[in-house]
Formats: sequence, C-alpha cells, structure tokens
Amino acid sequence: MKLTAEQVARFEREGFLFFPGLFSPEETRVLTEAVPALYSRREAFNVREKGSDAVRTNFAAHLYSAPFARLARHPRMVEPVQQLLGEALYMHQFKINGKMAFEGDVWQWHQDYGTWLNDDHMPQPRAMNVAIFLDEVNAFNGPLMFIPGSHRKGVVDAKHDLTTTSYPLWTLDDALVAELVERAGGRDGGIVSPLGPAGSMILFDSCLVHASGSNLSPWNRVSVYLSLCAVSNHIRRHKRPEYIAHRDFTPIDCLSDDCLLRQDPVDLPWRDGMPASALVTSAPEPAAVA
Amino acid sequence: MKLTAEQVARFEREGFLFFPGLFSPEETRVLTEAVPALYSRREAFNVREKGSDAVRTNFAAHLYSAPFARLARHPRMVEPVQQLLGEALYMHQFKINGKMAFEGDVWQWHQDYGTWLNDDHMPQPRAMNVAIFLDEVNAFNGPLMFIPGSHRKGVVDAKHDLTTTSYPLWTLDDALVAELVERAGGRDGGIVSPLGPAGSMILFDSCLVHASGSNLSPWNRVSVYLSLCAVSNHIRRHKRPEYIAHRDFTPIDCLSDDCLLRQDPVDLPWRDGMPASALVTSAPEPAAVA
Repeated sequence: MKLTAEQVARFEREGFLFFPGLFSPEETRVLTEAVPALYSRREAFNVREKGSDAVRTNFAAHLYSAPFARLARHPRMVEPVQQLLGEALYMHQFKINGKMAFEGDVWQWHQDYGTWLNDDHMPQPRAMNVAIFLDEVNAFNGPLMFIPGSHRKGVVDAKHDLTTTSYPLWTLDDALVAELVERAGGRDGGIVSPLGPAGSMILFDSCLVHASGSNLSPWNRVSVYLSLCAVSNHIRRHKRPEYIAHRDFTPIDCLSDDCLLRQDPVDLPWRDGMPASALVTSAPEPAAVA
Repeated sequence: MKLTAEQVARFEREGFLFFPGLFSPEETRVLTEAVPALYSRREAFNVREKGSDAVRTNFAAHLYSAPFARLARHPRMVEPVQQLLGEALYMHQFKINGKMAFEGDVWQWHQDYGTWLNDDHMPQPRAMNVAIFLDEVNAFNGPLMFIPGSHRKGVVDAKHDLTTTSYPLWTLDDALVAELVERAGGRDGGIVSPLGPAGSMILFDSCLVHASGSNLSPWNRVSVYLSLCAVSNHIRRHKRPEYIAHRDFTPIDCLSDDCLLRQDPVDLPWRDGMPASALVTSAPEPAAVA
C-alpha cells in the first residue's frame, strides 16, 4: 500500500489520514474475537477503569496473541508508516483500548509524544500512532477528537495528570487547547472526529493533540493503538515497564497482505507469560554532578 | 405558535420536537449575558460540578432574573406545550445547566418523570421538558442524547444514583438502556442528538429516556431546561426544597412574543433573596398504620 502525493501532503498539513473500512469484516472479526480472552486475564498488562472492572487498556497483546502479532506486522499498516517516516520501524507500544459500553471513561487532551519524551526519553517525534477500529465508531461511543494541524506546534507544555482517570497521562491545559482549536478553525473544523465501520484505520502524528469523551452508549468502542517508532529514534530510558514501552528495537518484517485470514505463523515470546525482566525499570536518575 | 398535525403525530411517535434557531441571536444574547452574574452567586441554588467550581446547574432563575422570568412566560415556548398537554400549565422546575467547556460532566441515562414521581409525587407524566440552547450545540460539547420513542414505555425502573456526579438522579440500568436503544433502531437511529445554533428549542416528553456526555471541548454548552406541568397534575409532596421543585401552581400567563427584547415588566418574587420557606421540606412520611 503506497500513499499518494496528495495523501502525504494532507498528512503533513492535517496530521492524520483516515482509511475507512481498510480491513474487511472477516479480518476484523479475527481480531475482535480474540479480545474477551485477553481482557479477562488478571495481569499487570490489563489496566481497568477507575471504580469499575471494565478494561481501559490492554498492553502488548502482539507478544502473546497470534492474531494481534500478525496485525503488528501487517503491510497495510506498516508500509504507509514506513513511507511517511522514511525508515525501518520497531513497535514502541501496542494497546487495545476498551472504551467499553456505558463504562468507557474520557482520555484527556494530550500528545502521545509528550509521554514518550518525558517518560521514555524518545529523542524525536519520529514515531506514528495507528488506530484500528475493532468496533464501529459513531458519534455516541466516545470517538477520537483531533485538533487538525496541531502537530505542527511540535511538543507543547503538559503536566502529569495522575488523578482524572485510572491511567497517568501528560495532559495539556485548557487555555492551550482552546488556542489550538481556534487556530485550527474554531467551530468550523477546529475539532474533527473520524467516524466509520469496524476495520477502519487512522494514522496520526505523535504530536497531534487528541482526546476522547466518555462512552455512555450501549456500544463498545474497542480500538487497537499501535505506536511505531523509527529504529534510529528508539527510547533511551526504561522508566516504564517493558509491557508499556518496548525495549526490542528489531525492525518489523511485514507478513503477507492476507496474513490475518491465512494465519501466517508468528513468534509469541510472551505466550507463557511475561518475563520478570519486563517489570524491571531503570533506577532513578543520578543527581546532576556539578 | 401552533403545532401542525404532523408535528403532533411526530411528537407522539418520537417523544420530542426540535425547533432549530427558534429564538433570534438578539433574543438569545439577552439571556446568555445574564448567566455569568447568576453563576457567580454563592447560593444553594447553584450546584457545582464534582471537584470543580464550574456550575453544573442553576435553579429558579425565573424568580430572580428578569430575562429568565420573561422566558418562563414566552408564548413561543408555552403555547405548543399547552397544545400538547391540553391544559393550563405551571412551572415545576427551572434550570440553567452549565455543561461548561472542559468541565461539564455527564448526565446519566434517566427519565425526568422518574425523579418527579419518586421525589415529588407528581401523579402522572403530564409535564413537559423544554430545552433552550444558549450556546451552539455541536458533536463535541456534550449534546443531549435521546432514545426516540422510549417515552412510550411509560415510567421504567430506576435507582437513585448519588455518587456518579454532584447531583442525585434516578437512573436506568445498562441492560434496560441497551434494550430501549435496540427497540428504537439500534445503530440506525436508536440514539439521536439534536444539534443546532444558540436559540434552538427542544420539547421532549417527561418520560423520554435521555443522557449527555462530558464536555471536553473549549465551548460552553449552556442550556435552559424548563419543566412545565399541567396544573391539575401538580406535585403532592415537598421533599425537595422549593428552588428545585416549585410549589406555586398558578397557571402561567404568557407575555408578548417580543417580550425578551421589549423587556416586558415581570414580577421577581425572589429578587431580594430566597425566602426561608423555600428551604423547608416535608417531614418524613409517617409509617403505615395497620
């Protein structure tokens, strides 16, 4: 899959590209059907909503679930990102976010790269977010909201929000969000939400400012969020456990375009459980020496 | 303003009617400009969001603010309700809900009549909700969500939710909401959100099941919610203070159609503060005598 010059220009201008229905219903079903078993596991890699048993986010399924291991190497997803970043890629983060019916909580306004810089010491924003819808996303089940063009500001100020939801996030303050929305067109396009069927894909810049509302509807809004980083831009610090921020910088080799249905063989290094080393984090930094 | 037979039939079928831009920008501005002074008051009638200073709901402004006292007697609002209920009306409840930019919290799925029955002993659902937008309502600032036709189920089971938000509400359980949405068309129209400019009005049945999401956008979504009750159907219990559930069952007399701009004279009984009697509530009910 090769992006056109028009698509590349739009990505640079808007900070995202939307591909409705890129994966077929059959391909999507293979992924969706694997989710309940993953969410039911009582493991550190399943973060649940505040005051609820619903899974907010599952980490690193590509290391222990065959369908998601195939998705992590899917050419329809990897090749356009490689084209945009111009380099081989490794998997920095792999999440299946629940945003479950009635239970799904908000994600505050943030840039993903803010977290990767502050927590993981990723040198540059040479990484891409990919969202793949496992359910239809509509106006009622808490769609992603983007501020088009906000990635062009680069990294902006953020503070570490440890209380609003069950997952810590480097979030932007209200005045800055208001300013970015105004700059992007205000009520006329300053916020946009790509809506579409299960199997749709969004590529979005790691500096694009985004958020999503709560899900009060009776419809789950499960999405896979893959973060692909240019190999030369790998993270320099392991403050967060390995199931959140990966430490294997091996370039991704793509499988075939029909790998999800053909069930191409894949390696599952965490099939029998997470290694103890995945929970080891780097020591606090030494104080600066004068 | 007289509803057509088609509008009356639609109201009976769907449970609501939407009038985009019914009040002009000039009329709406008179109301909007009066809100900050009302919200700034440290009074029992201003309920603030959980953990925030933003006003969630202001009660009874029609008793101490001239523009809102005029709105409460506006023929464009009162006459169609009178037509639908076929009787003189009194003001049961008058709210200005904030749903402020970045701060506005959810309203869980509920029927207003559930609260009026359980708390106020209103005999029948012969009362109407009216929403008037003081700000544009768009997909991003927490619009109302309706389940069309759900009013035809009459009063449904609800439980008193005292914890989710700062305001107690009789809310529906998830399974019932899912069933109602499915019956109303599921993903094809089972939930709808009227969106439109400031000055728009919605009439909706007091049994219509509704909710609204959080407001993460930089745009306030202030709305007036008036609840008009048939005079013969007045409440029988004063468990809630008078600023929440009114005890004056005098029929509403309409002012002129241009009362907002002409500034028609109005009576403001609480201009100098709420009377102490407004806080007096009825004694707990005596135990049943065998």
